[in-house]
Amino acid sequence: MTVEKRNPIPVREAIDRVVSQNIYTKQIEVPLEDSANYILAEDIVATYEIPRFNKSPYDGFALRSKDTEGASGNHRITFTVIDHIGAGSVSEKEVGPFEAVRIMTGAEMPKGADAVVMLEQTVEDKQSFTIRKSFDINENVSLKGEETQIGDIVLNKGQQINPGGIAVLATYGYTHVKVFDKPSIGIIATGSELLEVGDELEPGKIRNSNGPMIVALSQKLSLDVASYQIQEDDLKSSIQVVRDAMSKHDIVITTGGVSVGDFDYLPQIYDAINAKVLFNKIAMRPGSVTTVAVADGKYLFGLSGNPSACFTGFELYVKPAVLHMMGATAIYPQIIQATLMEDLTKANPFTRFVRAIATFNGKAMTVVPSGFNKSGAVVAIAHSNAMIMLPGGTRGYQKGYTVDVILTESQAYEMDCFI
Amino acid sequence: MTVEKRNPIPVREAIDRVVSQNIYTKQIEVPLEDSANYILAEDIVATYEIPRFNKSPYDGFALRSKDTEGASGNHRITFTVIDHIGAGSVSEKEVGPFEAVRIMTGAEMPKGADAVVMLEQTVEDKQSFTIRKSFDINENVSLKGEETQIGDIVLNKGQQINPGGIAVLATYGYTHVKVFDKPSIGIIATGSELLEVGDELEPGKIRNSNGPMIVALSQKLSLDVASYQIQEDDLKSSIQVVRDAMSKHDIVITTGGVSVGDFDYLPQIYDAINAKVLFNKIAMRPGSVTTVAVADGKYLFGLSGNPSACFTGFELYVKPAVLHMMGATAIYPQIIQATLMEDLTKANPFTRFVRAIATFNGKAMTVVPSGFNKSGAVVAIAHSNAMIMLPGGTRGYQKGYTVDVILTESQAYEMDCFI
Repeated sequence: MTVEKRNPIPVREAIDRVVSQNIYTKQIEVPLEDSANYILAEDIVATYEIPRFNKSPYDGFALRSKDTEGASGNHRITFTVIDHIGAGSVSEKEVGPFEAVRIMTGAEMPKGADAVVMLEQTVEDKQSFTIRKSFDINENVSLKGEETQIGDIVLNKGQQINPGGIAVLATYGYTHVKVFDKPSIGIIATGSELLEVGDELEPGKIRNSNGPMIVALSQKLSLDVASYQIQEDDLKSSIQVVRDAMSKHDIVITTGGVSVGDFDYLPQIYDAINAKVLFNKIAMRPGSVTTVAVADGKYLFGLSGNPSACFTGFELYVKPAVLHMMGATAIYPQIIQATLMEDLTKANPFTRFVRAIATFNGKAMTVVPSGFNKSGAVVAIAHSNAMIMLPGGTRGYQKGYTVDVILTESQAYEMDCFI
Repeated sequence: MTVEKRNPIPVREAIDRVVSQNIYTKQIEVPLEDSANYILAEDIVATYEIPRFNKSPYDGFALRSKDTEGASGNHRITFTVIDHIGAGSVSEKEVGPFEAVRIMTGAEMPKGADAVVMLEQTVEDKQSFTIRKSFDINENVSLKGEETQIGDIVLNKGQQINPGGIAVLATYGYTHVKVFDKPSIGIIATGSELLEVGDELEPGKIRNSNGPMIVALSQKLSLDVASYQIQEDDLKSSIQVVRDAMSKHDIVITTGGVSVGDFDYLPQIYDAINAKVLFNKIAMRPGSVTTVAVADGKYLFGLSGNPSACFTGFELYVKPAVLHMMGATAIYPQIIQATLMEDLTKANPFTRFVRAIATFNGKAMTVVPSGFNKSGAVVAIAHSNAMIMLPGGTRGYQKGYTVDVILTESQAYEMDCFI
């Protein structure tokens, strides 16, 4: 058997090939309360203005600005309180000269009034108060339509529904919303060396950690995942399991069995199911043998059996694919720049991804590897909140260099940042 | 009625007061498959080495390094293949002089062998192959224990179980793990101006958007949330609803009704339930009236009724509190620095938080406000993936300044970043 020659492509091109496939999930309608993390399949248009009416942004007194002219510390002006309204109520009175309505945050401005004096800016008596400064027209008033006008697109097709999106939909009374369905994922951890988590260890074998890791990575994207039985390295049954998983899921992920070798059946499986291989070698470490194929409008990801490579492959290729299938416009991981706090001097012709801890130290964003970082490493993944991205080449990277970093978790350890 | 005087404290001190409370959830044991996002209540110690045995990181041939001495392009050395092992198998043969075992990625090194030649580095014949370079002892071998030794702490108490953590637990055979329970959250959207999402609009009223937004924010933290009925602004029934929510939840969040004013019952509610108020004024915009109290080992958050202020209050105070209660060591939001791409010249004595879009443009991290950004704004929250944090003072901020940014969502729009 000869060694298959594979042609490595750059990371960026690999991601491009993945997200340029004409593969989308179907459009469905979901209730508002279940819509978080879905991608909108329609623009949401403002059906009324926000604010819907001129309203007070503070607790205070609504009055006529022209009555405040000339007010000062030496010349306080007195107003008579003629009504008292909470949010949700509307005063039936009209504010006349040197009159005011006591008004709560969010309440509609009464007729006649065009400014709000905050409680803190007054000296109150029983039915009156005085002020010591003048107010402009519309001072301390949230004007009708200042945020959105009727017909404004307030949420865009392709936008992920985040908590703010939920608030916008609620505001406009959307009890249901049209979205792209979430893809379902089937996971097949391949390799006859794999034991289940509850199994006792046996010589030469290890427990399956990639399967549970991919389930957790998928759940972070709010996706449903089914795990398929670990396969003996047998071609015929492997094809059957992949076929079975593909009939039930939009994405099928295999881990392991993607190396170029005698016991690697993936190429033959892809042949058997008529899959089109987008690439089977990427100029990256770890995970250079990561393979992505498509068949019947579905994605097949062949991730490495090495945990760090498997993790990296999921973050770089599966995640953008999921967001692409769901019609999202923002599909790439957040990249930041940080100061490297350790030497990484080993040069590599391929782009290197290093599991890492990124922290803002109050002055600058810093990043260090999160531990032993070979392809097969697993512990460093657990301790990372980021991946350092080192362009390939003939040089290494020294402490103090600025490097690009992909954030993979949202929490940080320090609060040296807060003012 | 007089205006209550409140003393604003800095954001950092407010967060400090919240996370220094001696309030923790109880410890529970959960199955591995449900353990994602929980915080570990125990150190996880390595019960065996990783790797457990010397193994091959590549598909290739295991041989004795000393037999490769002197190999070159002009002097190829030939090896005879005596066995053939896949991952999970162990060769029963011992490698002798100029012998080799064909070995797959992850397989245990056979006796006698101390180096691996990658397939790509060989010219193969039927039962033999030649090489053109020499190999060092342990070259291309993953050594037993090189990642972890027995007794190493591989996951720390207080660490959040991320997908990598799941992989580590699976590796060591933990089918169950001891964690801090997740706090349950009760949400009470207060204010008689509030309609339900499905209600028709009425004069002076708006639909409740903060309630659904907080549910979504809580779900992002994998928390269960119960929503309580919107209250008429009536003190007695309000106290009863808060008492009821507190009897069932670890955290009770109210939105609205926290302004200093006639219809604000929160201070009286806190009195009635003997709550200790940690602060009721923060030197921040929006959300300066955000109030946090504790009672009976539970948190009460009084968030603003203004959507942007409510969102900001949740991100800054509720989120760290949740992580603190769960025993987490990393409880602060990730802060980065970015170049401001728009003038924000309005000076403010308080720290300002501006909903924003952060993007790496291939050269630098940039950030712009995500739209109309007053306290009452809702649409800009939906379009944001970050918050700009502007220290208070007498000056504004100009385009080109470097500012601190809190990341609130993980996706980005551009891929100008990838090499």
